[in-house]
Amino acid sequence: MHADNIAAHPRAKLSGVYDPDNAAADATASKHGVTKFASAESAITGADAVLIATPTATHIDLLALCLEAEKPVLCEKPIDLSLERVNAFRARLTDTDIPIMLGFVRRFDPGHAACQKARADGTIGALHQVTITSRDPGLPSDDYIKTSGGIFRDMTIHDLDLARFMLGEEIAEVFVVASRLVKPSLMQACDDYDTAIITMKTASDKQCVITNSREAVYGYDQRVELLGTKGMVVSDNYHNHNMRAYLAHETNISAPLQNFFIERYATAFNLEIDYFIDAIETGAPVPVGFEDGRLALLLADACLLSAKEGRVVKINEME
Amino acid sequence: MHADNIAAHPRAKLSGVYDPDNAAADATASKHGVTKFASAESAITGADAVLIATPTATHIDLLALCLEAEKPVLCEKPIDLSLERVNAFRARLTDTDIPIMLGFVRRFDPGHAACQKARADGTIGALHQVTITSRDPGLPSDDYIKTSGGIFRDMTIHDLDLARFMLGEEIAEVFVVASRLVKPSLMQACDDYDTAIITMKTASDKQCVITNSREAVYGYDQRVELLGTKGMVVSDNYHNHNMRAYLAHETNISAPLQNFFIERYATAFNLEIDYFIDAIETGAPVPVGFEDGRLALLLADACLLSAKEGRVVKINEME
Amino acid sequence: MHADNIAAHPRAKLSGVYDPDNAAADATASKHGVTKFASAESAITGADAVLIATPTATHIDLLALCLEAEKPVLCEKPIDLSLERVNAFRARLTDTDIPIMLGFVRRFDPGHAACQKARADGTIGALHQVTITSRDPGLPSDDYIKTSGGIFRDMTIHDLDLARFMLGEEIAEVFVVASRLVKPSLMQACDDYDTAIITMKTASDKQCVITNSREAVYGYDQRVELLGTKGMVVSDNYHNHNMRAYLAHETNISAPLQNFFIERYATAFNLEIDYFIDAIETGAPVPVGFEDGRLALLLADACLLSAKEGRVVKINEME
Amino acid sequence: MHADNIAAHPRAKLSGVYDPDNAAADATASKHGVTKFASAESAITGADAVLIATPTATHIDLLALCLEAEKPVLCEKPIDLSLERVNAFRARLTDTDIPIMLGFVRRFDPGHAACQKARADGTIGALHQVTITSRDPGLPSDDYIKTSGGIFRDMTIHDLDLARFMLGEEIAEVFVVASRLVKPSLMQACDDYDTAIITMKTASDKQCVITNSREAVYGYDQRVELLGTKGMVVSDNYHNHNMRAYLAHETNISAPLQNFFIERYATAFNLEIDYFIDAIETGAPVPVGFEDGRLALLLADACLLSAKEGRVVKINEME
Repeated sequence: MHADNIAAHPRAKLSGVYDPDNAAADATASKHGVTKFASAESAITGADAVLIATPTATHIDLLALCLEAEKPVLCEKPIDLSLERVNAFRARLTDTDIPIMLGFVRRFDPGHAACQKARADGTIGALHQVTITSRDPGLPSDDYIKTSGGIFRDMTIHDLDLARFMLGEEIAEVFVVASRLVKPSLMQACDDYDTAIITMKTASDKQCVITNSREAVYGYDQRVELLGTKGMVVSDNYHNHNMRAYLAHETNISAPLQNFFIERYATAFNLEIDYFIDAIETGAPVPVGFEDGRLALLLADACLLSAKEGRVVKINEME
Repeated sequence: MHADNIAAHPRAKLSGVYDPDNAAADATASKHGVTKFASAESAITGADAVLIATPTATHIDLLALCLEAEKPVLCEKPIDLSLERVNAFRARLTDTDIPIMLGFVRRFDPGHAACQKARADGTIGALHQVTITSRDPGLPSDDYIKTSGGIFRDMTIHDLDLARFMLGEEIAEVFVVASRLVKPSLMQACDDYDTAIITMKTASDKQCVITNSREAVYGYDQRVELLGTKGMVVSDNYHNHNMRAYLAHETNISAPLQNFFIERYATAFNLEIDYFIDAIETGAPVPVGFEDGRLALLLADACLLSAKEGRVVKINEME
Repeated sequence: MHADNIAAHPRAKLSGVYDPDNAAADATASKHGVTKFASAESAITGADAVLIATPTATHIDLLALCLEAEKPVLCEKPIDLSLERVNAFRARLTDTDIPIMLGFVRRFDPGHAACQKARADGTIGALHQVTITSRDPGLPSDDYIKTSGGIFRDMTIHDLDLARFMLGEEIAEVFVVASRLVKPSLMQACDDYDTAIITMKTASDKQCVITNSREAVYGYDQRVELLGTKGMVVSDNYHNHNMRAYLAHETNISAPLQNFFIERYATAFNLEIDYFIDAIETGAPVPVGFEDGRLALLLADACLLSAKEGRVVKINEME
Repeated sequence: MHADNIAAHPRAKLSGVYDPDNAAADATASKHGVTKFASAESAITGADAVLIATPTATHIDLLALCLEAEKPVLCEKPIDLSLERVNAFRARLTDTDIPIMLGFVRRFDPGHAACQKARADGTIGALHQVTITSRDPGLPSDDYIKTSGGIFRDMTIHDLDLARFMLGEEIAEVFVVASRLVKPSLMQACDDYDTAIITMKTASDKQCVITNSREAVYGYDQRVELLGTKGMVVSDNYHNHNMRAYLAHETNISAPLQNFFIERYATAFNLEIDYFIDAIETGAPVPVGFEDGRLALLLADACLLSAKEGRVVKINEME
């Protein structure tokens, strides 16, 4: 998907692809008529900028290669499943100005971004409550779940970054209600959860709640709502198309929600590339950087701790 | 229904009821603990103001009685099925100031009224097009149809009055596409239509279209839309309640539309009584009077003529 | 409001009114042409059934009078601010079959009720998450706040009853994030909160979240959402009317939300009376009874404890 | 736009471009790294299939070149402004099976297409009424208007094709209300109109109405509605994004409608190419062909005649 997006983007050019899965690399290189690099190193050396969309465990090593090669890099989330490794890598970033951008694509969704703007520009006055509903259309494969790092580091992490973006200040504490309702046996086996409600409070007592489920049969449910002293803004879902039926016993019948993130966040993926290019061309700070990725992971770990221990977790416990 | 509305209205008091159907009169009088009058004359004499909701053929005689008794009167539409009789009665109204209000209740629907206001106060700039969708949930009984005076004088007449209200100027010509699609045999037998699209133009070339059907299985469909140079306003339907379902293949599934006019225009019926009482108490002109009733009937007759002859009818042909 | 509702209700008759505020009693009695009772005792004796809408502190004594007089009673929530007093009174109810119904009116809202039905009849499959948004349009007076018993016993209690109704099983634990954001000084002075998010879990790990605020400037925000294995149902707000404006830079501009509970729950108040009459006439159990009132109060107390101590509260701690 | 669409389409490859405007040809060829052909002839010879998006007056000559070169062709509407020339060219098509597809892109809009399907598959029962609202966001340049062929052949023609698609049977008569309200002086000078309501009837008395305006300041308004014996389907507009604001006096405030056809029909343009490729690859009939283009033009001419003469025009008058 990322290769297609870059190839189709008016400001970007796909220079080549590296994939340890040789067949996948062949397919992508041939489809777009671009170089198939022999190694990650040669890919990084051979391009002006790098997009990392590999398994999470490889991210930090690849980021290190990009830093060495002094190549701007857009890396998929999470940086890593280990906060310790992330913290260790952070030490290496103090004296570099190579742009490292994290792929928290939801920030670039025009509806979500308009909500954040309505808070930042005062349209809704002082912010009081943020409500994020984020439900996947269905469980991924058992194998995916087993290596995902758990719901908080795999799925909630997007919402935690969005929460920080919407709140405009750091989260001070979290509390999680976590359940195994969609596929209890698998969740039990993985010591994971599939259904969760996460509440948060900032230092200035602003509130946020995230409602997560691995299964919403009606589609990919992605909503944001902000309440302030002057009003509320809501970013709503999209349907596959806008035909509605009015029949004898039911009216307003609409198409399913856009399903899945490739459709729902198509515009956002394009805007993400725009922001990355802006950062490269103008030296402007990336809109979401390494520290954002680290803090989202730290919050995800706090969520897991809260779920395990059934208690409020203060964020400063985690550092 | 009108008796219930008056009884429940905070500013009105039901003083009594007359109904040639003695059982119906008994039921209403007993339900509300009020006088059952022996005749229309005694009812009119015995009340401070009169609401006429009798068969159309009796309206003019009862209006005459009200005038004689000098009683303010709120009369259901249409005044009569014969424009000639209405014109003849009009001559008697020149030297009276007894309030005669016509029951074009839709003008008082808060959504419709807000549309008219948005035109009148300039919110939408100069008006260009008015679109009225007006569909009954289903055909009334064959007997009703046979004595209804036809779709234009029975059903469209409400929309024609609304068109005048929304346009804010008189209609100069009409053209009608009329069909027999819901119950062709009955319509053929009655020389009537059940499906019609009426287009209109004013002297200043503003446009209006009414879309009518005797059958909308999804409920009572009542919409108004105004396009102006600065924007559009829409008055939409109401559902029985606001629960929506999102299932695997269909989303947004809503309850049927409010069905029928008693539910849909409940608020409007109450506001209509308020305006009537205002006119009585303050001497203010009634918001919709005899001449409005006469012009709506004249337009209905023009629609019928257009349908019969398949041509544009200029309204000044009708006078 | 309750007197008006009873007077207008097709199946009820207002027999009289008692109010220690003599002027208010006069106004109501005169408006409806009914007896002004000299005391609560004579009112209870003089009527077939009783509706209690007095200050909370008087509820239990009045309920006791109704029991003595063997009169069915519909009592506004909460029963009392003291769980101890409620528990004590409960002991007296073991050998009576006089209907005692609690005024948790939201259960009767057609949209909310349709959500509950969609859970109960399996339309949405097995229930996983309940989301309740409940925000008042603005803070009541300082005096009201000071004697209200606090946000949880005054405002959230409605939502806690709704949560039990929607979940269909008892709540096992609650956790509250509570803030003072709308009027911090008043809240500080009263040791109260104006903004809260309450999360809950049942014994079978179903989840529920309530989002409360004392101030939503866009109107009275009352929404319910249920997620199940087969789908989601949502009960949404109502606007003052259904006119929408489409202007050059903004579209879909709608009227404010219905504001306040008298408008929003008008239909529900009528249906509540219907259920009460059904219980009286048929001996059917009341749809929401004393024990429901007691459990809602107990949950409200648990919320307060959670807010004070910043921890999860198990409901069985409270008994 | 068409070049970009072809280049980005997964099943198509842009082989080259010809444009008499040399600078424009250079820009397109360079952007996509493709051949700039020296002439229309060489472009047609040099490609496997042709897309014609040139000024209307050139369409027939270019279609003729495609036929000679036996190249499948997708041609923008209208075929020509002269029905006579179109009829003359039709004679040449009797013994060719080269696919000629017309660019009536709205048929491929997923919402519109779902409406047509709901009629074709019986979901809404027997069709009674079709309502098409089609308003441009604003007037094009005066120069464009002057050479456009007039509102009916330039703008309404899309809606006339859509009307035929939705109705599923041929239109027997049209009647037009046409006004000069947006820019009266220009319209007077060009003997053109900017605001029109077109009503139609088929041989079986089905009804259709098109509401056109050259100016809807709230965006590009593109709606379709079908009423049948079993229900109604509606294809609605899209907003720029799905953020809505709820403020103190206005709620539900949404972004402007997608503006203009490039955004609104982006998906449809891609699906159009898919259908064209299907026709080329499988020999399947094109979904909208030369005769559809001819009939839409004939209907547009009938509309103009109706507007000029203020009367119903029977379509068989036009042949």
